[in-house]
Amino acid sequence: VKIQQLTVIGVGLIGGSFARATRKANKVETIVGCGRNEANLIKAVELGVIDSYKLDVKEAVKNADLVMLAVPLGAMTALFEQMKEALKTDAVITDAGSVKSSVINSIKTVYGEVPPHFIPGHPIAGTEESGVEASFDTLYNDRRVILTPLDNVDESALSLVKECWESAGAEVSTMSVEHHDEVLAATSHLPHMLAFGLVDTLAQQDEQKEIFKYAAGGFRDFTRIASSNPVMWRDICIANHEALSDKLDAFATEMTELADAIREQNADELLDIFTRAKTARDKFIG
Amino acid sequence: VKIQQLTVIGVGLIGGSFARATRKANKVETIVGCGRNEANLIKAVELGVIDSYKLDVKEAVKNADLVMLAVPLGAMTALFEQMKEALKTDAVITDAGSVKSSVINSIKTVYGEVPPHFIPGHPIAGTEESGVEASFDTLYNDRRVILTPLDNVDESALSLVKECWESAGAEVSTMSVEHHDEVLAATSHLPHMLAFGLVDTLAQQDEQKEIFKYAAGGFRDFTRIASSNPVMWRDICIANHEALSDKLDAFATEMTELADAIREQNADELLDIFTRAKTARDKFIG
Repeated sequence: VKIQQLTVIGVGLIGGSFARATRKANKVETIVGCGRNEANLIKAVELGVIDSYKLDVKEAVKNADLVMLAVPLGAMTALFEQMKEALKTDAVITDAGSVKSSVINSIKTVYGEVPPHFIPGHPIAGTEESGVEASFDTLYNDRRVILTPLDNVDESALSLVKECWESAGAEVSTMSVEHHDEVLAATSHLPHMLAFGLVDTLAQQDEQKEIFKYAAGGFRDFTRIASSNPVMWRDICIANHEALSDKLDAFATEMTELADAIREQNADELLDIFTRAKTARDKFIG
Repeated sequence: VKIQQLTVIGVGLIGGSFARATRKANKVETIVGCGRNEANLIKAVELGVIDSYKLDVKEAVKNADLVMLAVPLGAMTALFEQMKEALKTDAVITDAGSVKSSVINSIKTVYGEVPPHFIPGHPIAGTEESGVEASFDTLYNDRRVILTPLDNVDESALSLVKECWESAGAEVSTMSVEHHDEVLAATSHLPHMLAFGLVDTLAQQDEQKEIFKYAAGGFRDFTRIASSNPVMWRDICIANHEALSDKLDAFATEMTELADAIREQNADELLDIFTRAKTARDKFIG
């Protein structure tokens, strides 16, 4: 199925790459962009990422067959509100927000329930860059995309969104909202907390010690995610505070055991922990 | 000064790269290798990293002007013991161990004190590879090397070791044993504990949840150091357990604050922590 009009709200790295990829795959006829930064939208037209843009949300979505919301979690509720009256009745809505329970709550606030044509989604992809100039048509190639449709989902809407992502080269999985938020708490949100926490701990000790001066390449890799956008991460933490708190508790328990083993110089336990970790990483990630 | 004979004990990534770099800089006439793995030593001769090898430590060091110990921390004491009677009186000894208090204790066990010709050292460099085939002559180029000489040090011995590292392109710093071990606890040992602890925590939850399947590139970078050698890290933890315990305590305090802020959805505090961390990382590491 070819989509007549795709509207992308938030034409940055994620939204711009979605536009580029679906265009390249010949899945869409026309792409309309929308956002608050007009210079970015002009750039997106110049780059051929979108065909045209509207600053007004209602104008941008009124003829859309598919709307992709690629905006911060904190902007979702207001956008659903503005879109609601303007959308065609059979328009499909999807998003790329990284905490699905938060987006579900946003749309429930506006519609009272989750509309069957809304397909919550999350591409597990990204770079450290942002803005439309960072977007590229292979960002989602061989990457995973998680969709978290509810029980009342319209199956043809689900198929449409799935096809779009697959046309971009992504492998699409479907899971519950709760499972998604727990998995992301573990693999993304918790590691970001550790990186932010480590760098902040050392920064507070650094004045006297010049610690960072002697940091090697491993430290650079390990702390890269601590250079991420603080506002975005504040929003993610608050949106996913329950699942993230659980993961932080599990991690704290592990670290207490590890710290005890170090203090007691318990060689066997240390070797067990490190061996289990290395085996798991080499098997699953290496 | 050109060194007549350099003996490298442990001709792997670190020792082999030291041999290659000093050879390339024309700092050494002859390089003798020593180690327990004869196949590795034969390979080292074939690759031109060393000129010859001895399996017997006494034979390997008896004509040496400089001995480089590039072996695990747990092997140091026995090697100092074996070398002691065979060494020329003015031979300079140095090492590449990553916990300096541990190496100092090893040599004190054998000599009763730290000999003035011993220069404790630690190159802040390495890759995930090991063995002589992974060694290369630019490993130390633009990298830092920390020397931790004691008060009784022989100044010409110190100069010799410093010159060798500088000829390899390294920037040499001198600091106290305690300061070195604290800095490394912060920038290397603590991050390794977090990576091992994170992967082990998730591995224990993984069976039901398939968590690792959805891990993205950031997770791969963040956990890379959890694929390090478990035996080496067991030894490092035990050797540096005091400084590392202090750093783990400071980190645990920070993470308790962060976890509380998440649980309480304290937006301002979260933004403060993330902004401080990003600012520090971008300034010092980025």
